[in-house]
Amino acid sequence: MKRLVLITAAAFIGLSAYAQQALFGGSSAESPVINPDGTVTFRYQAPKAVKVTLSGDFLPVQTMEFDMGGQKITYDMPGVAELKEGQNGVWEYTTPFKVAPEMYTYTYTVDGTQVIDPNNVFVNRDIASLTSVLLVPEAGARSDLYAIHRVPHGTVSKVWYHSDVEGFDRRMTVYTPAGYEDNPKAKYPVLYVLHGIGGDEDAWVTQGRATQILDNLIARGEAKPMIVVFTNGNISQEAAPLENSTGYTRPTMDLPETMEGTFETAFPEVVKCIDSHYRTIAKKQGRAICGLSMGGFHTLYITLNYPDMFNYSGMFSAAIGTGSEQTAAHKEIYENVDGKLAAYFAKKPAMLWIGIGKTDFLIESNNEFRAKLDAAGYPYKYMETDGGHIWRNWRIYLSEFVPLLFK
Amino acid sequence: MKRLVLITAAAFIGLSAYAQQALFGGSSAESPVINPDGTVTFRYQAPKAVKVTLSGDFLPVQTMEFDMGGQKITYDMPGVAELKEGQNGVWEYTTPFKVAPEMYTYTYTVDGTQVIDPNNVFVNRDIASLTSVLLVPEAGARSDLYAIHRVPHGTVSKVWYHSDVEGFDRRMTVYTPAGYEDNPKAKYPVLYVLHGIGGDEDAWVTQGRATQILDNLIARGEAKPMIVVFTNGNISQEAAPLENSTGYTRPTMDLPETMEGTFETAFPEVVKCIDSHYRTIAKKQGRAICGLSMGGFHTLYITLNYPDMFNYSGMFSAAIGTGSEQTAAHKEIYENVDGKLAAYFAKKPAMLWIGIGKTDFLIESNNEFRAKLDAAGYPYKYMETDGGHIWRNWRIYLSEFVPLLFK
Repeated sequence: MKRLVLITAAAFIGLSAYAQQALFGGSSAESPVINPDGTVTFRYQAPKAVKVTLSGDFLPVQTMEFDMGGQKITYDMPGVAELKEGQNGVWEYTTPFKVAPEMYTYTYTVDGTQVIDPNNVFVNRDIASLTSVLLVPEAGARSDLYAIHRVPHGTVSKVWYHSDVEGFDRRMTVYTPAGYEDNPKAKYPVLYVLHGIGGDEDAWVTQGRATQILDNLIARGEAKPMIVVFTNGNISQEAAPLENSTGYTRPTMDLPETMEGTFETAFPEVVKCIDSHYRTIAKKQGRAICGLSMGGFHTLYITLNYPDMFNYSGMFSAAIGTGSEQTAAHKEIYENVDGKLAAYFAKKPAMLWIGIGKTDFLIESNNEFRAKLDAAGYPYKYMETDGGHIWRNWRIYLSEFVPLLFK
Repeated sequence: MKRLVLITAAAFIGLSAYAQQALFGGSSAESPVINPDGTVTFRYQAPKAVKVTLSGDFLPVQTMEFDMGGQKITYDMPGVAELKEGQNGVWEYTTPFKVAPEMYTYTYTVDGTQVIDPNNVFVNRDIASLTSVLLVPEAGARSDLYAIHRVPHGTVSKVWYHSDVEGFDRRMTVYTPAGYEDNPKAKYPVLYVLHGIGGDEDAWVTQGRATQILDNLIARGEAKPMIVVFTNGNISQEAAPLENSTGYTRPTMDLPETMEGTFETAFPEVVKCIDSHYRTIAKKQGRAICGLSMGGFHTLYITLNYPDMFNYSGMFSAAIGTGSEQTAAHKEIYENVDGKLAAYFAKKPAMLWIGIGKTDFLIESNNEFRAKLDAAGYPYKYMETDGGHIWRNWRIYLSEFVPLLFK
């Protein structure tokens, strides 16, 4: 009956032309709604459900402690709230507080089954998990960088390059800043941005809001116009899940060739491809690299093994000290760290930047690394934030790192 | 407990570095699974559910007839199947037949609430509806064109241009074929591809699999390398939902300025932008245009109002005869159709192509239009397929239309 009404309504307003599939989706409950007082209301229509809860990182986190083989690690779990059933089987929850400006993810759990919000088409994929997204921007707040404004926008491209190391074509995301096309003689510096385990060339663009951050920082005059390259650090993969020739392979964290040296070994072919296809400042002074978690690990070793390649390096919650170096296929990438650090700093790079959260389970290994730098008197910039190993921190680190580049 | 196990497991396999959010998602039920015999199994974990059904367009369609103000229209509804509860609260359904190679969408309905498949990260948005996607490719079948193969891939870019007509920047998707970057002196023909009501610059790339179709046809030598431009036909919008500065505006079919002439009036600024930023064959012989539903309507009137602009035009399930022309802001776009048809055909365009489904509710108005062409002796190509106003047909039409261009 609802379908018939929809079709008839569409006919009456003169819109007889629409995609058939569109008629099947969504319930009429509006969710999420950012209320005028800054609270947020979530709704889920489930007339027969017994219990509906909401799990989201805007709710007070539960920091939990785990024992991992003798090592205590802490982990931030998103808080949980219960929805109450109202009229017409629509369950509802309104936060008892103004939700701070930020980008959040959440899911519902309906009688034990986790689902995303069917009324919210803003969906993120992280590895094999889908979550709904809540973006609360606010003028003056950092999250305003994550929103889309009427400023000049860069071009975001999915680009394939041939990997000689792997023997097949691989995909990356390339951001060219606003004005790139209209200034055909200008040359631009390049920032390479690497994802974490389970991520891919889409991660920084979707969950990281990196292209919005770049558009907004450049528009404000707080960052130089630059080309930004988002690689796929899973070197055995062509591209993100569903974007490669293997079809329905279920996304997994357990990919081969992620932290054993092949990606670092192959990195110069990415730089060569970018330098030969874009108008770049093709030298150390025009190059920066950064990455989160596994990408921070990659950043460190790419930086150390090619000390003439990057002038700026950023390690965000870097996954150092996991021991993966010891079983690496390319052991040479991870050997002689002290010697490589000495050689790298002898060449006076413009900046090594380290950021990590106070409750990140990797903070100890990062502290050890910093102690090593301190002992040798090597300079670096350091940022410590609240929270753990989470995207909120990685967006903060990117938005702090980018304005410091190419000045 | 499950979370602790996941963290510990990750630690043991040496992967201590992953996105926190990734730990929260998904159940362990694998779904969908294409079985060796070609049947497909769907699973949904819901231990407390009473009834779980599946609605998908691979199930036998139910063609329904509606009366719309005296006019009978038929509409294909996707079939429905019931899942049965098995062990551990996992509901399951296996098709009793081999699912024919094609790209399908489906959703579950759990005790009256429609949800997507939480185990399938392949999600489509159509207007405000999310559906899960099932792609069944098969060598030799048409759907093989929709799959990603190890062939050279074009670049897919999200590009912003300034609309003088609207006064703000607008987004489009631009496909440049493999080899474009490596042949800096080559010039390419351009195909403009338009979406239907509720769609946007993403629709043809996601649901339409257009860039896969182009990659594969070009790799097979069945289509000329060409630039393809996917515009946003909702001229009052900057970009797709969540990609514009209005934030959380709920996507809707009921947009202003969709079929009242402004888009057609503004189309030359899109062509001008493409011709000035890409290496195009910037004349009628190097241009084609096509569109589905509302985009077929746009295609017709852009073709007729700029008879020197396009040599090839394709109307896919075109939304003609809806009456929207009579209340148009830019009436001049829709006036004097007979005169414009005469002027257009007098210039001997290479091809007008019309495709529609046998049960499409727009077939009568398309038949009337063809009768007018026939009466005047105007040449056109025609394809009639099974089924109605659905994406399956639009993918077929695109894959039939593209090989005929620029020969």
